[in-house]
Amino acid sequence: MLLYYLDLAGVAVFAASGVIAARDRGLDAFGLLVVAAVTAIGGGTLRDLLLDRHPIFWISDSWYVIVIIAAAALTVAYLRFWPAPRTPLLVADALGLGLFALSGAQVAEAAQCPPLIVILLGTMTGVTGGVLRDVLTAQVPLILRREIYATAAVSGIAVYLGLGAFGVAQPIALAVGMLVVVILRLLAVRRDLHLPALGRA
Amino acid sequence: MLLYYLDLAGVAVFAASGVIAARDRGLDAFGLLVVAAVTAIGGGTLRDLLLDRHPIFWISDSWYVIVIIAAAALTVAYLRFWPAPRTPLLVADALGLGLFALSGAQVAEAAQCPPLIVILLGTMTGVTGGVLRDVLTAQVPLILRREIYATAAVSGIAVYLGLGAFGVAQPIALAVGMLVVVILRLLAVRRDLHLPALGRA
Amino acid sequence: MLLYYLDLAGVAVFAASGVIAARDRGLDAFGLLVVAAVTAIGGGTLRDLLLDRHPIFWISDSWYVIVIIAAAALTVAYLRFWPAPRTPLLVADALGLGLFALSGAQVAEAAQCPPLIVILLGTMTGVTGGVLRDVLTAQVPLILRREIYATAAVSGIAVYLGLGAFGVAQPIALAVGMLVVVILRLLAVRRDLHLPALGRA
Repeated sequence: MLLYYLDLAGVAVFAASGVIAARDRGLDAFGLLVVAAVTAIGGGTLRDLLLDRHPIFWISDSWYVIVIIAAAALTVAYLRFWPAPRTPLLVADALGLGLFALSGAQVAEAAQCPPLIVILLGTMTGVTGGVLRDVLTAQVPLILRREIYATAAVSGIAVYLGLGAFGVAQPIALAVGMLVVVILRLLAVRRDLHLPALGRA
Repeated sequence: MLLYYLDLAGVAVFAASGVIAARDRGLDAFGLLVVAAVTAIGGGTLRDLLLDRHPIFWISDSWYVIVIIAAAALTVAYLRFWPAPRTPLLVADALGLGLFALSGAQVAEAAQCPPLIVILLGTMTGVTGGVLRDVLTAQVPLILRREIYATAAVSGIAVYLGLGAFGVAQPIALAVGMLVVVILRLLAVRRDLHLPALGRA
Repeated sequence: MLLYYLDLAGVAVFAASGVIAARDRGLDAFGLLVVAAVTAIGGGTLRDLLLDRHPIFWISDSWYVIVIIAAAALTVAYLRFWPAPRTPLLVADALGLGLFALSGAQVAEAAQCPPLIVILLGTMTGVTGGVLRDVLTAQVPLILRREIYATAAVSGIAVYLGLGAFGVAQPIALAVGMLVVVILRLLAVRRDLHLPALGRA
């Protein structure tokens, strides 16, 4: 039940982020909707495919598609009548990252995956929607930019697992984990926070 | 049975579109074949994965791979001996879009998905092959261009569902839906038809 | 058992190739790890999804993730203290291509796929990790470059199937097939070997 609302919320914010990313590409209404839908359902679909959960979360329940259409329409309307906030894509993406990273982690945990794999699956669930969006709209994936990104997802999931190990109730642990992801990510964008880059000699 | 021939035809035209898109990239014969094969089977594979239909349509039947090889070879030969038509990629892509959009819709309908999801799944089945082709050959995805694209798939599937609701026989409804996709798409390319773009204030 | 070690080795070299490809992109440690992990598990995950093998190879066994982390860390350390070899990405990629192409072929063969499909599935298993890596790091996919690439995978798998048909023991046939892929690919890079390009008139 909790998972259901997590997924609905993640779908809504990622749909909005898809519209924002695609808005200057000259797409018509249905083109925007397809980009929004793929962004919105990408991460959760990968999660369900990898864990062999069928039917895939959005396939037997029309509400997901309705939420995508509504979120996309509201985003279009908002962008038309109000000045866009400076970083709307980054905010919507941060929320989607947090929601889906924790939803992926929770499902992987329920499927008895070991902790390292809970972290990997949660992170992949969180980042996939955004990567698909960026590839579809031919932009450099956010995950490649310099500020904390995957690190935010990994940290939030680790906090969730840690709190669970200390006996904190799951809804609270999920909420705290999600907040960690979103706050880390937004701070990173605001203040250009980043860990030291690796790989360069 | 009908679905089998739809898939074979879609595979053939998408394989041709893969060869056309990759032809100037200096790929050798097997490189071209891999691009052609991924383009050809991408949409139907996603359809089967999402709906948990196993074995995936091309996995237990060699005919699909044979058709891909034949279509790719014919396309190479054609391009070598005749002047390329002005928009061969767009024509092959339009046919593939129509065939796979309707095949995806038909399978989703048979799996009892609600209408909105039939439309989404059919559209994703139709556009995936082309998106993979464009990403693999490092081009801007067709779906991002300005003319009607996703809209063609959505409209054709809606016509198919509408005709079915009025009791029209399925093979006829499928054929009409497919024609709607192909004609809308080709008209869009010819005349630069497009719906108003959204998202820009 | 043999397959298990093939997969572990493929995961390690593809993880290294992911780190090498992403090293100049300014990613932090977890960003690098995510790129390394996706590159490492991409091909085998596609293989398992397409053949409906669950759990996916890395989902119930933490060793894969541990190997990815170790391989990524060693690669980072190596790149920091030694001068990079001239073509480290190409060497790691060639090894991964060979290992996963043959592992994919072997699994497809065990699933009773016909030979053409064994070749296609093996090739897709081999090339997917590298394609995901190149898309994630926004580079032109290696598979599109001019030298022998898909051809190396196809040839190695064909040799493996041929040796099997002549009654050669499977571990030997696998090893020879793998060597064929790696040697063909490395020779191609060293000497700029390529088959004639097709598609241009």
